[in-house]
Amino acid sequence: MASSASPETAKPKIITGPGGYVLEDVPHLSDYIPDLPVYTNPLQDNPAYSVVKQYFVHVDDTVPQKVVVHKDSPRGVHFRRAGPRQKVYFHSDDVHACIVTCGGLCPGLNTVIREIVCGLYHMYGVKKVLGIDGGYRGFYAKNTVHLDPKVVNDIHKRGGTILGTSRGGHDTAKIVDSIQDRGINQVYIIGGDGTQRGASAIFEEVRRRGLKVSVVGIPKTIDNDVPVIDKSFGFDTAVEEAQRAINAAHVEAESFENGIGLVKLMGRYSGFIAMYATLASRDVDCCLIPESPFYLEGPGGLFEYIESRLKENGHMVLVIAEGAGQELLAESNTQKDASGNKLLQDVALWVSQRIKDHFSKERKMTINLKYIDPTYMIRAIPSNASDNVYCTLLAQSAVHGAMAGYTGYTSGLVNGRQTYIPFNRITEKQNQVVITDRMWARLLSSTNQPSFLHPKDIIEDKVDDEPATTLLDNGNCSPNCG
Amino acid sequence: MASSASPETAKPKIITGPGGYVLEDVPHLSDYIPDLPVYTNPLQDNPAYSVVKQYFVHVDDTVPQKVVVHKDSPRGVHFRRAGPRQKVYFHSDDVHACIVTCGGLCPGLNTVIREIVCGLYHMYGVKKVLGIDGGYRGFYAKNTVHLDPKVVNDIHKRGGTILGTSRGGHDTAKIVDSIQDRGINQVYIIGGDGTQRGASAIFEEVRRRGLKVSVVGIPKTIDNDVPVIDKSFGFDTAVEEAQRAINAAHVEAESFENGIGLVKLMGRYSGFIAMYATLASRDVDCCLIPESPFYLEGPGGLFEYIESRLKENGHMVLVIAEGAGQELLAESNTQKDASGNKLLQDVALWVSQRIKDHFSKERKMTINLKYIDPTYMIRAIPSNASDNVYCTLLAQSAVHGAMAGYTGYTSGLVNGRQTYIPFNRITEKQNQVVITDRMWARLLSSTNQPSFLHPKDIIEDKVDDEPATTLLDNGNCSPNCG
Amino acid sequence: MASSASPETAKPKIITGPGGYVLEDVPHLSDYIPDLPVYTNPLQDNPAYSVVKQYFVHVDDTVPQKVVVHKDSPRGVHFRRAGPRQKVYFHSDDVHACIVTCGGLCPGLNTVIREIVCGLYHMYGVKKVLGIDGGYRGFYAKNTVHLDPKVVNDIHKRGGTILGTSRGGHDTAKIVDSIQDRGINQVYIIGGDGTQRGASAIFEEVRRRGLKVSVVGIPKTIDNDVPVIDKSFGFDTAVEEAQRAINAAHVEAESFENGIGLVKLMGRYSGFIAMYATLASRDVDCCLIPESPFYLEGPGGLFEYIESRLKENGHMVLVIAEGAGQELLAESNTQKDASGNKLLQDVALWVSQRIKDHFSKERKMTINLKYIDPTYMIRAIPSNASDNVYCTLLAQSAVHGAMAGYTGYTSGLVNGRQTYIPFNRITEKQNQVVITDRMWARLLSSTNQPSFLHPKDIIEDKVDDEPATTLLDNGNCSPNCG
Amino acid sequence: MASSASPETAKPKIITGPGGYVLEDVPHLSDYIPDLPVYTNPLQDNPAYSVVKQYFVHVDDTVPQKVVVHKDSPRGVHFRRAGPRQKVYFHSDDVHACIVTCGGLCPGLNTVIREIVCGLYHMYGVKKVLGIDGGYRGFYAKNTVHLDPKVVNDIHKRGGTILGTSRGGHDTAKIVDSIQDRGINQVYIIGGDGTQRGASAIFEEVRRRGLKVSVVGIPKTIDNDVPVIDKSFGFDTAVEEAQRAINAAHVEAESFENGIGLVKLMGRYSGFIAMYATLASRDVDCCLIPESPFYLEGPGGLFEYIESRLKENGHMVLVIAEGAGQELLAESNTQKDASGNKLLQDVALWVSQRIKDHFSKERKMTINLKYIDPTYMIRAIPSNASDNVYCTLLAQSAVHGAMAGYTGYTSGLVNGRQTYIPFNRITEKQNQVVITDRMWARLLSSTNQPSFLHPKDIIEDKVDDEPATTLLDNGNCSPNCG
Repeated sequence: MASSASPETAKPKIITGPGGYVLEDVPHLSDYIPDLPVYTNPLQDNPAYSVVKQYFVHVDDTVPQKVVVHKDSPRGVHFRRAGPRQKVYFHSDDVHACIVTCGGLCPGLNTVIREIVCGLYHMYGVKKVLGIDGGYRGFYAKNTVHLDPKVVNDIHKRGGTILGTSRGGHDTAKIVDSIQDRGINQVYIIGGDGTQRGASAIFEEVRRRGLKVSVVGIPKTIDNDVPVIDKSFGFDTAVEEAQRAINAAHVEAESFENGIGLVKLMGRYSGFIAMYATLASRDVDCCLIPESPFYLEGPGGLFEYIESRLKENGHMVLVIAEGAGQELLAESNTQKDASGNKLLQDVALWVSQRIKDHFSKERKMTINLKYIDPTYMIRAIPSNASDNVYCTLLAQSAVHGAMAGYTGYTSGLVNGRQTYIPFNRITEKQNQVVITDRMWARLLSSTNQPSFLHPKDIIEDKVDDEPATTLLDNGNCSPNCG
Repeated sequence: MASSASPETAKPKIITGPGGYVLEDVPHLSDYIPDLPVYTNPLQDNPAYSVVKQYFVHVDDTVPQKVVVHKDSPRGVHFRRAGPRQKVYFHSDDVHACIVTCGGLCPGLNTVIREIVCGLYHMYGVKKVLGIDGGYRGFYAKNTVHLDPKVVNDIHKRGGTILGTSRGGHDTAKIVDSIQDRGINQVYIIGGDGTQRGASAIFEEVRRRGLKVSVVGIPKTIDNDVPVIDKSFGFDTAVEEAQRAINAAHVEAESFENGIGLVKLMGRYSGFIAMYATLASRDVDCCLIPESPFYLEGPGGLFEYIESRLKENGHMVLVIAEGAGQELLAESNTQKDASGNKLLQDVALWVSQRIKDHFSKERKMTINLKYIDPTYMIRAIPSNASDNVYCTLLAQSAVHGAMAGYTGYTSGLVNGRQTYIPFNRITEKQNQVVITDRMWARLLSSTNQPSFLHPKDIIEDKVDDEPATTLLDNGNCSPNCG
Repeated sequence: MASSASPETAKPKIITGPGGYVLEDVPHLSDYIPDLPVYTNPLQDNPAYSVVKQYFVHVDDTVPQKVVVHKDSPRGVHFRRAGPRQKVYFHSDDVHACIVTCGGLCPGLNTVIREIVCGLYHMYGVKKVLGIDGGYRGFYAKNTVHLDPKVVNDIHKRGGTILGTSRGGHDTAKIVDSIQDRGINQVYIIGGDGTQRGASAIFEEVRRRGLKVSVVGIPKTIDNDVPVIDKSFGFDTAVEEAQRAINAAHVEAESFENGIGLVKLMGRYSGFIAMYATLASRDVDCCLIPESPFYLEGPGGLFEYIESRLKENGHMVLVIAEGAGQELLAESNTQKDASGNKLLQDVALWVSQRIKDHFSKERKMTINLKYIDPTYMIRAIPSNASDNVYCTLLAQSAVHGAMAGYTGYTSGLVNGRQTYIPFNRITEKQNQVVITDRMWARLLSSTNQPSFLHPKDIIEDKVDDEPATTLLDNGNCSPNCG
Repeated sequence: MASSASPETAKPKIITGPGGYVLEDVPHLSDYIPDLPVYTNPLQDNPAYSVVKQYFVHVDDTVPQKVVVHKDSPRGVHFRRAGPRQKVYFHSDDVHACIVTCGGLCPGLNTVIREIVCGLYHMYGVKKVLGIDGGYRGFYAKNTVHLDPKVVNDIHKRGGTILGTSRGGHDTAKIVDSIQDRGINQVYIIGGDGTQRGASAIFEEVRRRGLKVSVVGIPKTIDNDVPVIDKSFGFDTAVEEAQRAINAAHVEAESFENGIGLVKLMGRYSGFIAMYATLASRDVDCCLIPESPFYLEGPGGLFEYIESRLKENGHMVLVIAEGAGQELLAESNTQKDASGNKLLQDVALWVSQRIKDHFSKERKMTINLKYIDPTYMIRAIPSNASDNVYCTLLAQSAVHGAMAGYTGYTSGLVNGRQTYIPFNRITEKQNQVVITDRMWARLLSSTNQPSFLHPKDIIEDKVDDEPATTLLDNGNCSPNCG
């Protein structure tokens, strides 16, 4: 199967055009395997698609990353549009696909699994799909499970992942050995940025060995911290479910003298869930996120603000993203979890204690602080209707790309269109809330909280105005822009 | 206040640029009132926005309607990007705004009202905001209500509209008289396509009279049938809530021999809710929408399909959009409701009866058909978190535009960016599901229902491939493309 | 197996005691089969029950029907208390049980099925349990399904009944033939009053044939119209779910001028769901139930009341039980459905039309009436936690009774205690709201609706004061008293 | 107003009758104030009640505490039945009522407040009702708020208490001073056992001073730990909401290798919420409550059971009531909170840590433990429909009693009937799960967990078999019996 193995790392495929047009293309099996046979796409004979005349994506279709433009601005970076191609590089009977889910839970995992299986089966007639049990390590340490439309029929109504998941290190060579041994030729990898880096390594190893195996990533991050894509699946569901915790915190706070409701939300490095949950709720008085440093004492600090809210309203609600204020925690903490994520101290507990101490000792005020951590209750619910549809398109796009011979890509939504994005663009940085942006300004305006910024700290946003501008009018349907 | 009144209808403002760039711009008060004074945007002094360095939208920012492009394709139509401008055309103390809601209920109406009021108040310091009671007629036939942040504080948690609404005709001249008499200079009109046509007429009359009054539309349509924009607010919430009815229909159908669960969903001319609810649910065996004609009898017809499903599964679930199959109803019906909408016969009841008759009389089969109409239960719920954030951005965009002197526009999301769209683009046609498109093919594939198309009916999709292509990978976050 | 077959109908077993004590006992297999062997209850060796010293129900335990007593009042009717007995009349290996569900859907059906299966299996080690498919007719016309704890493990999270159900006539002899042919010796029959009458006939036939078969009824009626028992399972869930429809009706009504929200709720002969849903909601202005006649026109009529509410509040909400006002419908209707229930005309549609006609024609008022029928959406949901626990106890009580050799009884909650009630007490009449009682007075007081009673109609409540008194402080936990 | 002040504590009022009948009666204002005027109950003229012929509760109506009886058993303890009396001891214009809420939040608080206000207003025409702000201390340390039907109209849809609440000590004399100074003559006190003891002290002080003031308790305890009554309001809602946390724990546990989901539920001294939530869910493998001691290590211990479940199923779900296993915690902890409740160590966190340590260190197994504490999210939700109706009856009963001159009582549901219970019966002990009872046996049977009891620990349940027996068939509608 392998031919001329190429040891070096794949180079980015950049194509340019008039008006400053740049296409950041994704790898293709034919890049390193010559003379691959091509087949007619079996969708052509699918009755459901028989009425669609222009069904196949045009070979030149691309989607711009930047959609706020001027009359004379350069066209900038584009990504290849996802969708079915006229020609495919796999014969359906030859396909042996596998699916693996890695990292923490996120609403929608089961829907993505379901739709990859059903997409392969119903659209392309692929019958051999394996589920890898328990994350990356499952490739070599656990059993696999056979997947077909009957097995996955109702799983989208359940939270979690039927395949099981795990965090942590894995051995790329052993995974590729297992892929090779089992004769797998399409690998669908659902996971966060660490997982996508792992997928990239698997792709490189597959490529080095010259295997005809498509390696496809599907970005999963409840925190919405994957760059480039509009938003990650499960995000809407998570923001919706977070409202329950905020409502409870509000009720508790209102019912006690000097009541403070404190809700910790997900967001290791990116405060999107906290920000959107706050904007959707309107009952939050202060939202703290990793991107916006804050301080507790003195003028303009958190204690002063809390005291002013308690005096004014008698109660307040705080939302803290789990990664906020890490720099404040006294003991520098360099531990990492099994996936290599820096182990964070629980900032919400720490802030709770500091608030209690401050008001009881310094201010001699009795406060009633209630701390709510809804993290697992949010992660574990099934995806809502909106995320279900989103997951369906994401999964089908992933399948179309693999069938068409593309590899080393992540399937992702860019400006409302499904695209194929090279791994390096997904893993090179994290998507974060830009706090010099209008969305964050909106939040500050809605909560009336202080910015916690000294005037000298206000960074001039000069180099690249795109991140700032594109986020500006980010609606709910594209919390991200990269 | 008035100057040189211009009797003729405002001409579209078209601006062109290199590479086929076209900007379909919106009217501005200065188009027909010369020498208007301009002011510094008070946001500049708002502490919440003080950290935002590039806060104001660049005067040249535009957003393309088409984001699937080729290396050498022309750039096409653009819309002006929404957002705050450095200069405004109203002094905050002089602003006298009013808000009116028209037509049927839709989740999110109260959030839009709340955010216009709070946006005007908190961002621009505007204190005078009137609520018009009971739709357009309220301008001259009912009392008004004073709106401020305290009044609207919790309304986003309630369904419906606190302003009341109504359908039906109205007298443009009397409305503009009322606007003039009350000294109103910003008019925010929330409603569907009929309402937007009304807004257009009000704008034209205001312009003819030379009044310094910004007329702003905010598109409200639970059916998602407004063109150009990505999706309408409340749509996500509606699709989510529709799942309840589909689940109930599925349970009823499964529990009885030859059980048929039939759910009627909203969708007078556009089947978006039915289509998305079907795609999100996976329990639906057949989805009928206005855009896709169907027939009952004979090979390839609905009866045949129902019988095959009952034989195979013992039960089935049908979803019918309210506007489906109108051409089938024997008595041609030319009545219209008070808003001028064609009065539809209840196709779901009619189909129910025909199914019952067919199976009891022709086939001598006992079937158990349960009909569920969840329309009012869907319309009346509060908007979910996702729609709450969307409504917030929509309302704030509308406010920024009016303050900046723009008028005669609809505030709308295009490819994930807030824009200002000229009224004519919103009212000229309805957004519909393109049934020769991949999204509909996806649905057919997921339900396995027949296409109800004779091969000869399959229309070549030749003229303009954009509608087809853009819809192709429409994720949940942009069910529309126009 | 059979011995001395007794053709006559079983006589009620009445036992009396001091102080006016009366026990209405249930039949026992030993009543007509002599010399049955008895066994030690295997629960004695069950580790879960090993710590329970007084686990078995005392042979003399009974529960009074009447719990409002005077110092010197007679003790009245009692029922045998449910629960495990020291001695059982079946050897676990010999038990061959079957379960059948009949009539309309009701939340909790699957939980009852699950708990009968699990109760037999885990408590008594019974392995042979059959599910009869599709109601009574399934005994002779359909396949059966094997039931064990694994099959039923998750079914309580789903609405409907996994066994299927049907309405309508059945052939008692053929059912008992089937029971005999299959060697079934415990029959669990879940259904409403028609079904319980059927169960009674099956019991009589079994008894006539002298079969050692326990016939057990579990009352299922979402309307709560079964007498004697405190409330029927699924009732709480139904009242909870009805709130959604009432909320929607309220929002629709509030948002339109002269808005009327009309909700039809279940209740063929008994208005309990309508009454409790109204009391729980507080947004209802008028509740119409079968037990309380009403009239439309003239002083004290519905139209007058509606007009006064519209004038006062601008909107109103009506709740109508499906069986209300049948006497008003012009065309007397004598059709019956397949179960022999009188086919009711849709009173809610009829009232809607009459209201519309009255106000448009007589009063020349424009009203906006919205009609919501949530029936199937209520029936089809899974039972809530409260009903889940209730169904568990009901099912386990049923099982204990059958194992102990009792037969011809319904398992039911009386004054908060599980009891065995003879069939005749369940089927002799329907439980209804007593409108000369305090609960209905509470409702009238909370809605402010007229009583629709002419002073002359006020019936002296003389004969039996028990129904009146016991209902008086009926909390939610016992909507019934009989 | 005061007459012959009596310094000694009120003696229990015990009335006996034939057949062992005992009535534990409640105090009455006329017990210590002679010659009080009586008035005709104004309900007599209320149109809503005009149709009710036997509306008033008979003066001799009582309700037995024990409803499992034998033919010849003594009749035992009874309580006075609640409800309106023919004669009242207050003229409506003279009533000046106040309401106070104390202790932690519980679903239904606002409904009780609403219905006391509306009951007084609509049934008796009482216009002067004060809300005491922030619990007992509010009598002398905070402002009060005027309450009327308009103010409380929608509060039952919100969680928490609009009056605010607090824990902790209070000065009985100062409270009674405040009652006297303000001219209050009906005091409604909503709170748990500590609060009811406070109410008892207030009643005694009022009585000593000879004041014509009715002091009424309404038992509030989300833990259901108040004795005598069937169940406490909010309990149903809490058990329902707890299902969310258990579901999440189950999903998290299932998705990871050796996943353990651990949910902490309320229950300081009584495990009712944990027990009912476990019985309703069916996904729980082990439920630990304060009443049932357990141990971690060795045969029959928790670690052994966990390991066996992980080996068998790969995951498990634990529910721990907050008061469970206190005896296990090494450091004996004698701190008390402001209300005098013993401060408990967080047993769930402690058990989590011990489990982690055991498996990582002793067993070298990697486990994935997820800990969920939904306490505040449960407490803060609005009451469901079932609890809403329950709260209504409770509040109306309380009002009827005070108007009728009764005092020093708690309004409570006994065997499904509203009664008046003397304070001492409510405060003398706590309601607890009887672990030698069938309900707990049911739980053990459903989870398969070990009993954690050594055979020698199995206490003979000899003295009083009533608590054991009455709990036996406790359905959801009466989780308690005392």
